[in-house]
Amino acid sequence: MASLSTGQKDEALARIADALIAETPRILETNATDVARGRAKGLTESFVDRMVLTEDRVAGIARDTRAVIALPDPVGETIDMATRPNGLQIGRIRVPLGVVGAIFESRPNVTVDIAAICLKSGNAVVLRSGSDAHATSSVLASVVAQAAEASGLPAGAFQFIESTDRDEVGAMLRAHESIDLLIPRGGADLIRRVRDEALMPVVTGGIGVCHTYVDAGADLDMATRIVVNAKTQRPSVCNAMDTLLVHVDAASALLPQLAEALGARGVTLHVDRRAAALVGSAAPTLPTDPADYDREWLSLDCSVRVVDSLDDALTHIEDHGSGHSEAIVTESYAAAQRFQREVDAAAVFVNASTYFHDGAQFGLGVEVGISTQKMHARGPMGLRELTSYKWVVLGNGQTRA
Amino acid sequence: MASLSTGQKDEALARIADALIAETPRILETNATDVARGRAKGLTESFVDRMVLTEDRVAGIARDTRAVIALPDPVGETIDMATRPNGLQIGRIRVPLGVVGAIFESRPNVTVDIAAICLKSGNAVVLRSGSDAHATSSVLASVVAQAAEASGLPAGAFQFIESTDRDEVGAMLRAHESIDLLIPRGGADLIRRVRDEALMPVVTGGIGVCHTYVDAGADLDMATRIVVNAKTQRPSVCNAMDTLLVHVDAASALLPQLAEALGARGVTLHVDRRAAALVGSAAPTLPTDPADYDREWLSLDCSVRVVDSLDDALTHIEDHGSGHSEAIVTESYAAAQRFQREVDAAAVFVNASTYFHDGAQFGLGVEVGISTQKMHARGPMGLRELTSYKWVVLGNGQTRA
Repeated sequence: MASLSTGQKDEALARIADALIAETPRILETNATDVARGRAKGLTESFVDRMVLTEDRVAGIARDTRAVIALPDPVGETIDMATRPNGLQIGRIRVPLGVVGAIFESRPNVTVDIAAICLKSGNAVVLRSGSDAHATSSVLASVVAQAAEASGLPAGAFQFIESTDRDEVGAMLRAHESIDLLIPRGGADLIRRVRDEALMPVVTGGIGVCHTYVDAGADLDMATRIVVNAKTQRPSVCNAMDTLLVHVDAASALLPQLAEALGARGVTLHVDRRAAALVGSAAPTLPTDPADYDREWLSLDCSVRVVDSLDDALTHIEDHGSGHSEAIVTESYAAAQRFQREVDAAAVFVNASTYFHDGAQFGLGVEVGISTQKMHARGPMGLRELTSYKWVVLGNGQTRA
Repeated sequence: MASLSTGQKDEALARIADALIAETPRILETNATDVARGRAKGLTESFVDRMVLTEDRVAGIARDTRAVIALPDPVGETIDMATRPNGLQIGRIRVPLGVVGAIFESRPNVTVDIAAICLKSGNAVVLRSGSDAHATSSVLASVVAQAAEASGLPAGAFQFIESTDRDEVGAMLRAHESIDLLIPRGGADLIRRVRDEALMPVVTGGIGVCHTYVDAGADLDMATRIVVNAKTQRPSVCNAMDTLLVHVDAASALLPQLAEALGARGVTLHVDRRAAALVGSAAPTLPTDPADYDREWLSLDCSVRVVDSLDDALTHIEDHGSGHSEAIVTESYAAAQRFQREVDAAAVFVNASTYFHDGAQFGLGVEVGISTQKMHARGPMGLRELTSYKWVVLGNGQTRA
């Protein structure tokens, strides 16, 4: 995999996209069984919706696969090559990590997304799908593997774990000699299990308790626009806003108009005492529970807290944030500077919605997830983040004293 | 620590260097007790030598600490800042990792080296020294911590584990909420224990089974110079050569002259059948044992194997190398290209000695060790490798559709 040319990888991606289109009937047939089983089992409609494939959705997966062709191949890039005083040319060359293991939720498209990103970055991949979409993921993985092999890629470049036994996850976590990096995508339980049991390096993320802080003197219309976008555009994703922090000097002007805008979009506000007095009946409200501040809502709920200062906002974020996405809305240069310097998160936003935290929006093209750890990669994990490097030293007989 | 200015950090480094000089008598007195205990315990003279401090050596440690002042501060560096089509400015800013844990061998200077590198990169550090040099390391750590505090750095920036109980290592490995990165420096047993038990990210390395391959048609004098340097300049370090691979077409001309040069420097050659016939009595020889090929000698021993092709050399390196430092001596452009492309190691050398694999030689200034893993950092771990980054998104009210 590491020695494939960009042309070979792009050719394989095109074949995979073609095969997905050609095999759409078989994919949809299998998907219908997963969906029926999920409904019979009583899965929520929003959960089932993420599993459902249609002809359009399969075409979308194929289109996303083709989009990876246009992205630059990170492998072979030379970084920082320079000549040392003794004449040695020393630099780094980007190389694949090797074998990436991915454990992911019951979203069939993720099977193909991760396979395509790993292929372009020169990595082999071992895929473990969530059990509810397992049959669909299995078909998709076999379509990918067959198209890749037909294109001349090595057998075993895409491996799919057919067993849904939870013990298989344990075996995967111990396989440090076969898997170079493990990416768990899923809830807190999976993340914890992986952290405790995995013997190989892991990149975790995906859990976002995200704040937007509206500073004193902020532009109230901008603040409303940003908060509404961060909370309501896609409430089920990790970069959605969970808690609104409002400076006390902005609260009386902002909260009534913001509550109206959020209420109109079906948001329930979980308000502290000072916010409650200002929100009135513009939106459904509940008194805040202290545990709410540590909660990733993933729904049309929003904690609202009035704070006395930027310092209090920073402290709240430090105490309750998960290091994912944090935003400030401000007109103050000093406040913007302090916020971006002092907040310890994968992405810090000034006068922009946290919903922008995404590989495509950040210019990476694609991502396998968003890392909230500091080692290796932080924020969106794109092609470059699935590589390592090696040092290359080019001499003409140098020895070291 | 993360918000210290470069000036504050450099001031603290200067104070630490001054304190080391001022406290030299106390440091040497304590060191003498470690050394006496080590000798009484029957430690080898080379082991004891690495523990011994003298006035000159303490001055050297102080000088190395001052040298860190001159290195650029990696914290705050902006990477890849660019403006997206929607006007958002998006880029990354380098930040410290947080708290670095280091478990290291009985070499007192490492205590100060790691403390200085962590300080300059804005990280707090928790140090665990090898037990034989524990008293010396403890004194050095307290000199560092006191000088840093006197310079206004936060208390607790440098923590030294006073207990030598091995259970303390277990507690350290489970402290994932306090330690962001663990760096174990030591033998294979420590590395394995850390890999199995650590709950936080780890950067391992330090074990080098390193090869030099002399290609057909190589310049024989260059080959001799490079091999002698890689094997004998400092045989006890991880970048020293362990196995010489010689193309059969170069063997009959190279091995006699090389054996003479190595023999003159006290090297024992562990030779395969074909090499044995060519080496003659120019150097002490032993027949090779198959297990030798997986051995990091750390001594004036060298495995020698004659191979039939570059392919065979690449296969040998893949089977037996530890991914540390691998070299080729060749006049062939194609062979040089293939070797640097196909060998999977932290550093690949063409016509240069593996002994160059070192942070200072590579232009990093200093290092806390050499990583042989692919995640986060590979090769020398300098100041930059002890940092992470955060994404910064600067807008003027943007929302995402």
